Amino acid sequence: MDTKTIRSRSAAFFQDLQSSICSTLEMLDENAHFLVDRWTREDQTGSHGGGGVSRVLRGDGIFEQAGVNFSEVHGTLNPEMSQRLVGVAEDLPFYATGVSLVIHPRSPMIPTTHANYRYLEVGQRRWFGGGGDLTPYYLFREDARHFHNTLREHCDAFEPGLYRRFKQQCDEYFYLPHRREYRGVGGIFFDYLGRDGAPPADHYFPLVRSLGEAFLESYLPIVRRRRSEPWSERERTFQLIRRGRYVEFNLLFDRGTLFGLKTGGRTESILMSLPPTVRWEYDYRPAAGSREAELMEIVRHPTEWIEQH
Amino acid sequence: MDTKTIRSRSAAFFQDLQSSICSTLEMLDENAHFLVDRWTREDQTGSHGGGGVSRVLRGDGIFEQAGVNFSEVHGTLNPEMSQRLVGVAEDLPFYATGVSLVIHPRSPMIPTTHANYRYLEVGQRRWFGGGGDLTPYYLFREDARHFHNTLREHCDAFEPGLYRRFKQQCDEYFYLPHRREYRGVGGIFFDYLGRDGAPPADHYFPLVRSLGEAFLESYLPIVRRRRSEPWSERERTFQLIRRGRYVEFNLLFDRGTLFGLKTGGRTESILMSLPPTVRWEYDYRPAAGSREAELMEIVRHPTEWIEQH
Repeated sequence: MDTKTIRSRSAAFFQDLQSSICSTLEMLDENAHFLVDRWTREDQTGSHGGGGVSRVLRGDGIFEQAGVNFSEVHGTLNPEMSQRLVGVAEDLPFYATGVSLVIHPRSPMIPTTHANYRYLEVGQRRWFGGGGDLTPYYLFREDARHFHNTLREHCDAFEPGLYRRFKQQCDEYFYLPHRREYRGVGGIFFDYLGRDGAPPADHYFPLVRSLGEAFLESYLPIVRRRRSEPWSERERTFQLIRRGRYVEFNLLFDRGTLFGLKTGGRTESILMSLPPTVRWEYDYRPAAGSREAELMEIVRHPTEWIEQH
Repeated sequence: MDTKTIRSRSAAFFQDLQSSICSTLEMLDENAHFLVDRWTREDQTGSHGGGGVSRVLRGDGIFEQAGVNFSEVHGTLNPEMSQRLVGVAEDLPFYATGVSLVIHPRSPMIPTTHANYRYLEVGQRRWFGGGGDLTPYYLFREDARHFHNTLREHCDAFEPGLYRRFKQQCDEYFYLPHRREYRGVGGIFFDYLGRDGAPPADHYFPLVRSLGEAFLESYLPIVRRRRSEPWSERERTFQLIRRGRYVEFNLLFDRGTLFGLKTGGRTESILMSLPPTVRWEYDYRPAAGSREAELMEIVRHPTEWIEQH
């Protein structure tokens, strides 16, 4: 598979995935309609270009906010960034395409979810990265198991043992040291797949396609199961406080967010991941034995959601 | 003035300032009462110690949230941090004491304000840093002028021209590049006063004391003037969206916040600066000619609030 083919196949797949996810979410939530925002990115010198499509839903129904982004950009990386990504301290040409999404349901009984799959080229190197994770506000163990199990099936069908590795990387990545908390119940995370050539990036394209396709399968059954679950102001307040952790992670640690903001990416598309309404409360502590305390206990210790064989 | 004297005088002043500010805010807002949280900081090896007093108000009255912190800590800085602060790449002992406050009023007509004054010792070096700034949601030019004018009088009485320098440093510091916005109408900002010895840190103690005392004088008249100003859901929503910029600055750029979180500071005291309720709205744009548009225009260009002589 030559470079052009893997580029264009990746970009085409990510764009199709965006459409399919948006249409399906719209079907599920009759009050939901995605706005479509097409944007281009050109600097004065012509050395940076490309663009994307941001689709954003803000509604009164199931989803308080959902953002699904597709982008395809190219340009030149500075030596510092090239060094970090491929170990060569030179100006290098880059190309990146990907899809990223964050869904913030209104009901605190439905978890927030995030997924991101991307293909990159920097100089002579090319690779895939991505992952997906689930952030519940109230814990339903069967939901966490369903989410992890779906991802495991797709990972391990491609290569046995892959889920375990990616699951651990997810726990390591989505960690807030100043809170001593992991993000939600985790999921999978991977980067640089194929960068060093053995096997090459195109070997991993079927895996990324399979995981992209798995998104709806991993998340929708949870939404359907929890949409009629009752909740009140108390649960809503807890959800807003927990959303604060989401903001803290994305602004303090998330590589994609910081990379995007610091290299002149499109601010509105990058910060679409932030929750629509958030609270911070000084020294909040849930009552012992409450469901809120149960959740906060779960995010302090990575859990094995699946029996390993 | 020997080291012990300037240390203890600074710490005593900052602690008194905390009490005076809290008592005065409580008098102003009859529904307001500060909770007092005393904390200590000791690590296993005994190489870090000290503590502080966090005072936090959360109420239904004028102030939705106000946090006023005093702290006095000591320990050992790693070589990277020492290099950054005093240009010596070694483990160095440090001592730091300071007061910091952030006030988030409920009414969008009353600006948010922040102030912070601190004294530091690292190895043989010692210095003062600090500043204060005003973040309105709706622009009242006389408020911005009053705030700046108060600070100018105190700065320039100490040394002519100081206000102008500190005002510019404030505009440079509180800048959000990805939004191309400055924070509110600015104020003053300074650091490393006395670090290089000519003049030494103790020369600046009277300035810091004077600026600390100026805080209430710079802010309270604005609160009194705006507390009866009417507002509705529309203004509240704009306030919550603008508060998002406050979060973005503090988590992405604020040196104190990042330094604190990354060196094992007390998370709840550090993040007390974050607003209690916040909104993010995709691609929010105020209507042309609206008061919201007026504010957003102001934060895009640093303004001279005082005629310079």
